[in-house]
Amino acid sequence: MNNITLKKMAELLGLSTATVSRALNDSYEISQKTKDKVNALAKELNYEPNPFASSLRQHKSKTIALIIPEISSIFFSQITKGVEAISNHKGYHVIICCSNESYDTEKNIVKHLISGRVDGILLSASANTFSSEHMDRFIERKIPVVLFDRILDRLNVASVTSNDYESSFSATLHLINKGCQKIAFLKLGSSLSNIEKRHKGYLDALNQHKLNSNKSLALELSNDKKENLELIKIFIKTHQPDAIFASVEHLAFSTYDACKELRLRIPTDIKVLAYSNLEIARHLSPPLTTIVQPAYEMGKNAAIILLNQINKKSTDNGNIVISSELVLRESTDF
Amino acid sequence: MNNITLKKMAELLGLSTATVSRALNDSYEISQKTKDKVNALAKELNYEPNPFASSLRQHKSKTIALIIPEISSIFFSQITKGVEAISNHKGYHVIICCSNESYDTEKNIVKHLISGRVDGILLSASANTFSSEHMDRFIERKIPVVLFDRILDRLNVASVTSNDYESSFSATLHLINKGCQKIAFLKLGSSLSNIEKRHKGYLDALNQHKLNSNKSLALELSNDKKENLELIKIFIKTHQPDAIFASVEHLAFSTYDACKELRLRIPTDIKVLAYSNLEIARHLSPPLTTIVQPAYEMGKNAAIILLNQINKKSTDNGNIVISSELVLRESTDF
Repeated sequence: MNNITLKKMAELLGLSTATVSRALNDSYEISQKTKDKVNALAKELNYEPNPFASSLRQHKSKTIALIIPEISSIFFSQITKGVEAISNHKGYHVIICCSNESYDTEKNIVKHLISGRVDGILLSASANTFSSEHMDRFIERKIPVVLFDRILDRLNVASVTSNDYESSFSATLHLINKGCQKIAFLKLGSSLSNIEKRHKGYLDALNQHKLNSNKSLALELSNDKKENLELIKIFIKTHQPDAIFASVEHLAFSTYDACKELRLRIPTDIKVLAYSNLEIARHLSPPLTTIVQPAYEMGKNAAIILLNQINKKSTDNGNIVISSELVLRESTDF
Repeated sequence: MNNITLKKMAELLGLSTATVSRALNDSYEISQKTKDKVNALAKELNYEPNPFASSLRQHKSKTIALIIPEISSIFFSQITKGVEAISNHKGYHVIICCSNESYDTEKNIVKHLISGRVDGILLSASANTFSSEHMDRFIERKIPVVLFDRILDRLNVASVTSNDYESSFSATLHLINKGCQKIAFLKLGSSLSNIEKRHKGYLDALNQHKLNSNKSLALELSNDKKENLELIKIFIKTHQPDAIFASVEHLAFSTYDACKELRLRIPTDIKVLAYSNLEIARHLSPPLTTIVQPAYEMGKNAAIILLNQINKKSTDNGNIVISSELVLRESTDF
């Protein structure tokens, strides 16, 4: 640590401290020429900003909120690690809030956060969120919001997703290539943006191969594991699918349970495939074919966009799409 | 909703609103006689307190912080669900902060929270936390702190743990009864309170059966999965244990990986047992014998104690111990 302050640098350059600070933070309000001049002096004098101390000057909390729908999902814990890697490096604290797939809880969290204790919000909507009205007050107050994975179409903010349509299309093709003719699709909730895209990818792959895309082969489930197990068992007995495509991880485990109880062998009697970031998928019996989302990268990207918006380096509201990976294993006879 | 207010009830009873409020909150500052009188009137008038609105009157944030060492552990996500069940019911928000097993991060989180944005803290120490000094400022300011699972002995606060010594002792006996003579113990970190108790339970069970309790059969590992895998492989090749007892879940998965690479069959060549709350342990190949901690109950109890302390219903600093369950499966030849 040396004793070079923003004030000292401002004096030497004949600029205001606010201008020097914004230049160092790469604000779009400052010209490139001024930024170059400030950065050159900062380098010459070995200026080291203190990220935590600066929050007092800026009246900012140096805190971002990460709202996730489910805490026990490996996908969301990897997202969290990506968000934390970027945020901590930039001197920001991350507080995690969990909606437990409830729109009411999500609204309560958001209402609580509006008091100004956070500089920005990263949100993945709950399975029951059908409106984006609860986010309006952040938008009005110009508190940056970035959505990830499960987005809200009406909200005109930046977002980070994976290629849900394409990954689901390819995974369905894999099942068709393995000879499956009656592929069932297990959905979570009824309106989630990512699940809808996955469902469309699945339907289009079936249509391309002129396979039955009758809606009865889609089953809508919830987060109630006991109920899901019973519904899946009845569904399998009624429709006798030769493959089950689970649009979220825990539905695959309920499927494994159901197959065990019904004495169906995976993959001989029925093939199973799922969106899952579970690292031990390879140790399951049988090892589970998974579509692995780039969760850590998604978290990192969402945090970078949010911090850039907080620090006025960007106002871009685009959508970043990162590709998932299909990992073939024994559950689809690979 | 009706229009009965605290003020109205205070008028009717000839008490101050503060007294009525404390009586309704079961504060130890109010006599049982007064509490009974207030509660009887509240019942008669159908008084419904608004838990969120009351925070403004009390100058409280109605927020508690839950500091966990690892976000991707099922144990800590079940703890979180227990904490949220109680807190949300009582009108409290929960913000989750993750230390990622780093003492520095834990200190940073605590420093950030000291600004008064939370009414109380639930903490499970990181694997590298060797001091409790960072918590001193909360204790000085009388902000309640409750520890769970991984406690800090020097800190004289309430805590909730599971019966680490006893559960480890019984699990080791199970391995001995299965004929194991060279049982290795995989540790995380070097000073965690719960791991130390588990280690002691394991050593005492070995001693009781006059088995080799040489320290070389304990292996200290970290959260670096790649490094852990290499260390476990070398350890197995060097010591040729006939059983591995993993003191935390992810070390069991590294053990499964190591056995696969070394072409050792579980449980024929080597038995494996672990502390784990993984619901799909039964779908692993082979199904994993686990010691399941009562995580949800632990979370609920920790939240109840903390909220009682925040609302001055209790100042008890005792330790609550809840028993774990040994679930026998094929990995230990059950």
